[in-house]
Amino acid sequence: MNDAVSIARDLVRCPSVTPADAGALGVLERLLKDAGFEVHRVTFGEPGTADIDNLYARIGTEAPHITFAGHTDVVPPGDEAAWTHGAFSGDIKDGFLYGRGAVDMKGGIACSVAAVLDYLKDNGGKPKGSISFLITGDEEDVSVNGTIKLLKWCAERGEKFDHCVLGEPSNVEVLGDCIKIGRRGSQSGTLYVDGVQGHVAYPHRASNPVPDISRLIVALSDEPLDHGSAQFQASNLEFTSIDVGNTASNVIPGQARAKFNIRYNDNHTQESLRALVEERLAKACGNRIRARIVWEYSNSNVFVTKPGAFTDLAVSAIEEVTGRKPELSTSGGTSDARFISSYCPVIEFGLVGQTMHQIDERTPVSDLEKLTRIYRGVLERYFSQT
Amino acid sequence: MNDAVSIARDLVRCPSVTPADAGALGVLERLLKDAGFEVHRVTFGEPGTADIDNLYARIGTEAPHITFAGHTDVVPPGDEAAWTHGAFSGDIKDGFLYGRGAVDMKGGIACSVAAVLDYLKDNGGKPKGSISFLITGDEEDVSVNGTIKLLKWCAERGEKFDHCVLGEPSNVEVLGDCIKIGRRGSQSGTLYVDGVQGHVAYPHRASNPVPDISRLIVALSDEPLDHGSAQFQASNLEFTSIDVGNTASNVIPGQARAKFNIRYNDNHTQESLRALVEERLAKACGNRIRARIVWEYSNSNVFVTKPGAFTDLAVSAIEEVTGRKPELSTSGGTSDARFISSYCPVIEFGLVGQTMHQIDERTPVSDLEKLTRIYRGVLERYFSQT
Ligand SMILES: [Zn+2]
Ligand SMILES: [Zn+2]
Repeated sequence: MNDAVSIARDLVRCPSVTPADAGALGVLERLLKDAGFEVHRVTFGEPGTADIDNLYARIGTEAPHITFAGHTDVVPPGDEAAWTHGAFSGDIKDGFLYGRGAVDMKGGIACSVAAVLDYLKDNGGKPKGSISFLITGDEEDVSVNGTIKLLKWCAERGEKFDHCVLGEPSNVEVLGDCIKIGRRGSQSGTLYVDGVQGHVAYPHRASNPVPDISRLIVALSDEPLDHGSAQFQASNLEFTSIDVGNTASNVIPGQARAKFNIRYNDNHTQESLRALVEERLAKACGNRIRARIVWEYSNSNVFVTKPGAFTDLAVSAIEEVTGRKPELSTSGGTSDARFISSYCPVIEFGLVGQTMHQIDERTPVSDLEKLTRIYRGVLERYFSQT
Repeated sequence: MNDAVSIARDLVRCPSVTPADAGALGVLERLLKDAGFEVHRVTFGEPGTADIDNLYARIGTEAPHITFAGHTDVVPPGDEAAWTHGAFSGDIKDGFLYGRGAVDMKGGIACSVAAVLDYLKDNGGKPKGSISFLITGDEEDVSVNGTIKLLKWCAERGEKFDHCVLGEPSNVEVLGDCIKIGRRGSQSGTLYVDGVQGHVAYPHRASNPVPDISRLIVALSDEPLDHGSAQFQASNLEFTSIDVGNTASNVIPGQARAKFNIRYNDNHTQESLRALVEERLAKACGNRIRARIVWEYSNSNVFVTKPGAFTDLAVSAIEEVTGRKPELSTSGGTSDARFISSYCPVIEFGLVGQTMHQIDERTPVSDLEKLTRIYRGVLERYFSQT
């Protein structure tokens, strides 16, 4: 039986806590090979990180090419004794499938595989274009030997993706309530202000960086970065810490530093955002205050898949199965969609995220069945477009 | 020989690093008893501190009553091998007396004792009022078992002081350049601002205390506390540290705190100053920002001896001996004068402070002789006023 529930159980029973694969990709490899996919197992590594197994499988050679992306690694189970059912048992009880990864996101992968196999069976074993799976074992931890490298490997082989569905648990409360079509970018930095150390009794011989960094923090916090965009709320800068560490009450310190994080929308690129903040800082400093920003490395760039034909067909497939019209959301944390978005439009739609990363992670069996039908509906609509 | 140089040498040769007396007060007790003083040795202590020897000696029963105050304890010598002459040798070489305490302030005490003994000898062994010595062994360290308790002990015995000369090294570069007539008060505190912790991606669910404390720091730093007074420069508030200690770049912290120190002049008392700062804080907070100040205990109140007959006679005595007209200063750090000022007008005049607390602390022998003549001149003028 290649239904979503049994595939999900087989996957959950592999204790694939990052970086272990524990047989999870093998489950998919067998199913996809049997259905006629060309399957590649690719291992990536670099100094200081564990080697990671990844899988790329494709059927068909023509466009359009839709790829289902996902990760088979899971976060650790935490206190296993606290689980009602074993964290890797795959037990089904009272209509729920229990286990780490049930929603994030072995369940989602199982539904996409079941939907694709089902679609192929009903269409003579071949799609009217191409279908592929882009599955990594490195999403939950450092994410360096996973999707980002697998996409590069595909590009070097000449693989071209037209659209991607990433099966992360996108729904907030109930299946069908939310598709993620983008995420804000994240950029952190540290603001340094240099003064001149001295004794509080002789302030004219010193220059206190504390009021000066305070002025800069007020200036940078008060002026909005923008007022939002069609798909995004306004960008936002938050100072998360200020630290001087001076314990001598009679000493004016020589330096102050403040950390900040910016969540930014598609009014900016990382480069234009940094330039904007630097420009505002320079203006707030005038000729007197000596300040500088040290930017942190970030690979969380903003991205968005603009509403259109691709999102429309997903919405339609979801409405058909659930009766709900999903919100097209750009809120929330990060995922591998930030990497995929550099190659093709990507949307995220999967199970309901409520129990993810928690004790007793679980999904209703009925959601697995519905999500499979939704993915099947996506495939029907996708290949009937042309 | 009861000249200043030999008394100073005897004192320097007692290694009286706080809390040790090492015989220093005994040197003074013998000299003063021989001259007819009623001498009291009083020991003070409290839990957690070392017991400290103090001395109070008086001759005469009538007003006016002038007291010479000082301390026989010294700071540690540091690296004794680095001294050209032993730190407690009292060596005299090329016109300088070497040793820890030579200027701060065994030299000053020696000059006052020599001047008083000289004055009594020339005036039939009795002053035209009263002369006393108020000498502690606890000034350089925590200052809890010294002058502050000795003054209280005196008050309980009915002792009344009309004027005080504290022989601390008041001169900056050359004997006669400076009399200290007061000091600014010092008051420290910590400003706390409470926000609501949250995730940087959801700032509307949090309240960031970092920009808020920054606003308060700017407001409190920018508005002057006053514009100075007849004897003082302007009061000044300096923020010496801000600390949040948040290392998570995706978390808005729940609290921020900033430390500050205020040096304040005679436009304020400790109480009025605290009230003024609290009032300005409340105004800067408005109805939105939740902030509070925790004030530190302080016994460094502002005090000043207003220029008048007493400072005039000191200036006149200094001019006669040195040819210099001293500045009447209120700058610099703290001393026991802050305690004495609650009982009677006090001025500080002694040797030149340049080498105090350093390796090779030393005073020109000629300064000891001149300072003795200055104190003698003060006594002459003081008792000829009436
Ligand atoms: Zn996930
Ligand atoms: Zn001293």
